Amino acid sequence: MKKFTAVSDVENLQEIIKKALEIKANPLSETEKGKGKTIGLVFLNSSLRTRLSSQIAAQNLGLNVLTLNAAQEAWNLEFADGAVMNGDTVEHIKDAIEVLNQYCDIIAVRCFAGMKSKEDDVNESILSQFEKHAKVPVISLESATRHPLQSLADCITITENWKKDHKPKVVLTWAPHIKPIAHAVGNSFAEWMQEMDVELVIANPEGYDLDPAFTKDTKVIHDQDEALKDADFIYVKNWSSFDDYAAMPEVKGDWMLTNEKLESTNNAKVMHCLPVRRNVELSDEVMDGENSIIYQQAKNRIFSAQAVFSEILDSI
Amino acid sequence: MKKFTAVSDVENLQEIIKKALEIKANPLSETEKGKGKTIGLVFLNSSLRTRLSSQIAAQNLGLNVLTLNAAQEAWNLEFADGAVMNGDTVEHIKDAIEVLNQYCDIIAVRCFAGMKSKEDDVNESILSQFEKHAKVPVISLESATRHPLQSLADCITITENWKKDHKPKVVLTWAPHIKPIAHAVGNSFAEWMQEMDVELVIANPEGYDLDPAFTKDTKVIHDQDEALKDADFIYVKNWSSFDDYAAMPEVKGDWMLTNEKLESTNNAKVMHCLPVRRNVELSDEVMDGENSIIYQQAKNRIFSAQAVFSEILDSI
Amino acid sequence: MKKFTAVSDVENLQEIIKKALEIKANPLSETEKGKGKTIGLVFLNSSLRTRLSSQIAAQNLGLNVLTLNAAQEAWNLEFADGAVMNGDTVEHIKDAIEVLNQYCDIIAVRCFAGMKSKEDDVNESILSQFEKHAKVPVISLESATRHPLQSLADCITITENWKKDHKPKVVLTWAPHIKPIAHAVGNSFAEWMQEMDVELVIANPEGYDLDPAFTKDTKVIHDQDEALKDADFIYVKNWSSFDDYAAMPEVKGDWMLTNEKLESTNNAKVMHCLPVRRNVELSDEVMDGENSIIYQQAKNRIFSAQAVFSEILDSI
Repeated sequence: MKKFTAVSDVENLQEIIKKALEIKANPLSETEKGKGKTIGLVFLNSSLRTRLSSQIAAQNLGLNVLTLNAAQEAWNLEFADGAVMNGDTVEHIKDAIEVLNQYCDIIAVRCFAGMKSKEDDVNESILSQFEKHAKVPVISLESATRHPLQSLADCITITENWKKDHKPKVVLTWAPHIKPIAHAVGNSFAEWMQEMDVELVIANPEGYDLDPAFTKDTKVIHDQDEALKDADFIYVKNWSSFDDYAAMPEVKGDWMLTNEKLESTNNAKVMHCLPVRRNVELSDEVMDGENSIIYQQAKNRIFSAQAVFSEILDSI
Repeated sequence: MKKFTAVSDVENLQEIIKKALEIKANPLSETEKGKGKTIGLVFLNSSLRTRLSSQIAAQNLGLNVLTLNAAQEAWNLEFADGAVMNGDTVEHIKDAIEVLNQYCDIIAVRCFAGMKSKEDDVNESILSQFEKHAKVPVISLESATRHPLQSLADCITITENWKKDHKPKVVLTWAPHIKPIAHAVGNSFAEWMQEMDVELVIANPEGYDLDPAFTKDTKVIHDQDEALKDADFIYVKNWSSFDDYAAMPEVKGDWMLTNEKLESTNNAKVMHCLPVRRNVELSDEVMDGENSIIYQQAKNRIFSAQAVFSEILDSI
Repeated sequence: MKKFTAVSDVENLQEIIKKALEIKANPLSETEKGKGKTIGLVFLNSSLRTRLSSQIAAQNLGLNVLTLNAAQEAWNLEFADGAVMNGDTVEHIKDAIEVLNQYCDIIAVRCFAGMKSKEDDVNESILSQFEKHAKVPVISLESATRHPLQSLADCITITENWKKDHKPKVVLTWAPHIKPIAHAVGNSFAEWMQEMDVELVIANPEGYDLDPAFTKDTKVIHDQDEALKDADFIYVKNWSSFDDYAAMPEVKGDWMLTNEKLESTNNAKVMHCLPVRRNVELSDEVMDGENSIIYQQAKNRIFSAQAVFSEILDSI
């Protein structure tokens, strides 16, 4: 694997899920693989799970880890090509990347959507600079439109929790929130589920359809109750409007996932990428209930990262 | 040892002091003990000594270390059970802890008193959530009411500095400050000294008595001169009022420790947990004088932490 | 080497350049040298290259690394001797240094000029406290008046890029900026180049002469075109006025380095310490052009640091 920013970078999804599960069974099986090599973990945004799971995964592989909280620890970055840098920005992202090229064997970066310019976000204005200027493999720790290490962890978690012969029904359901949230997790989950042997349904209010470039021919239903019926897995996530970019059109009914809503499902497992706003996106009873596999997902972030780092190390 | 948040978690105080002194003599004697295990150091507040000494101690034991500056690097935390999270908080502490359970073999946390609600602080509103939800051993890096790694370092330091047959007189003396400071170090020192073979006296102005749950039957004197007489060790520390919680009632006289005040002592050694406000809590001449064992205390923070981490590792 | 804060700490400049180039050829040749020893990297200011290159260099030598973002992670520091600390500052730098003495075998510190008091900056009000109070070797990661690890990297880079018999002409040229910038890189480059076998010329506008304590008998020219003629290396850097301290007197003409200005040179290599303000200090075409060896400089920061750390380790 030469880079990891989307499901299209994975040659064989089933193989990498299998590898991740082998790593989970034996996380210290490749402690020499990364010896003498350095991974730079560059955070342009907050992180708990991604930060810690990536550090653990890298340590398990013997990699040196450089963690950089770019905004707080380094310099205010300029992103515009050709900018006359006579304002607040001190270092061009191009130059920061070229320096990281000198110091790292792998560059991993978190660069959320700015949620201001639809064009910038859709075009991955930051990640694209890493993809263009990096001379070493680039790994996304969540970008404007995707969160692939999360999605791989989601695939691992569904695989662990589904032993039946038939395809599970997987429902990605929109959840309420109090401010405009990016589309990355929703997009990415859709994109990865389309590669899995599942029946994917997306439920969201009118006005909240995700970018069709990601949902493709996935069935989108605007009635949550209908969508949840007979679900085997429910993935809860908020996102703002894509069409009217970052807007929050009025929503009819209450989309918060509750135990009552689980009743019509096939005793569905509940998933969420975290952090979650309790009693807004889903109720305490769901979060703390037996159907939740949310912390298992969080744990699988380690093995998702470790499988990817390991495959990237194979290529360098 | 299954957890370390108070002196009551220590089975045998003299044994762990002895162990810490052995570690001090040979800090790299157990470099394989923590191999393949991970300690998470979670800071909800500032730290210099605790941060660095914990990292050194963990490294000396071969532990992987994950350091998280929670407020700056991760998400704004919610602490209220049952909260409808439609405000500023992004992740519930319960969920952060459950995720740390997935990633760490030991969780160490610094969570100062908020100094707003006496009830919250006395009940350890944050540490108690760690104690409730953590599935791995929890170590306090200072909580609302205690600073046990400091207190253990204090015990080590007194042990190193007292070779006589009779009990030393140890005076915990209140010192001036410019803002309301928590009771953790004072409480904790009192609690640990009661387990040591010393004669403990607490000196503080009227209105500044510590929580009797910690001072118990320790003699409390409101006249500093009287208390300091014949002291062998003086522990300098400010705290705000406990009764009138976080208030700073007017104080008669100058309680700053000076060389002049040392004259009536038994050439007392002077201790402080640091950071210290020079020429407010104690004078430059005391801080830089021969009676100060304050930097030795700071060094002993390494061995305090390492002894505790080592005992915790024995239990997992 | 007992400390590293200026070129005068280097016994033999050619030897350490040679050592750095050997390290560059074989960075993992001394992975046991720092085992069981700890370097503290203390940042009072932002850092990208220095932070990462120092961490890599330390890891390559097997050193434990403690990185402290002092302002954000620890306590607000007091720098004034004898201060009555009844204001915003919580810990005296003296005490922080004494604690670092207890925890570290080497202390490295970044402490930029404050650009408010000429006297404080010229006297290295912060670094001098480290030099005075540290009981272990001190390494400057850039101080008020010097940036020696950068200058050593610059010497390495020039050595790599000059294979001719005669001395290269090296021009340190002032560049425009939008706010008052410190003199450290300019001073330090001048100081180190005077020890190299080069012909050094400094070009800056009138009113921008560097401190003569650093420039000594180096030729200073106020006409950039004249200075650049036949240059083999051009070092681009802004600084504010030294005489009228931190002022930015009006400048005639445009001092931004462009390809057009390179025409009169001897196909000069272009250098900069980074971060650089593109299209203010130098044009995109220069930054991205074939004459730039700026990223090579950045890479050499690793070997500069590693050579210094290695020599310091020899002394302890």
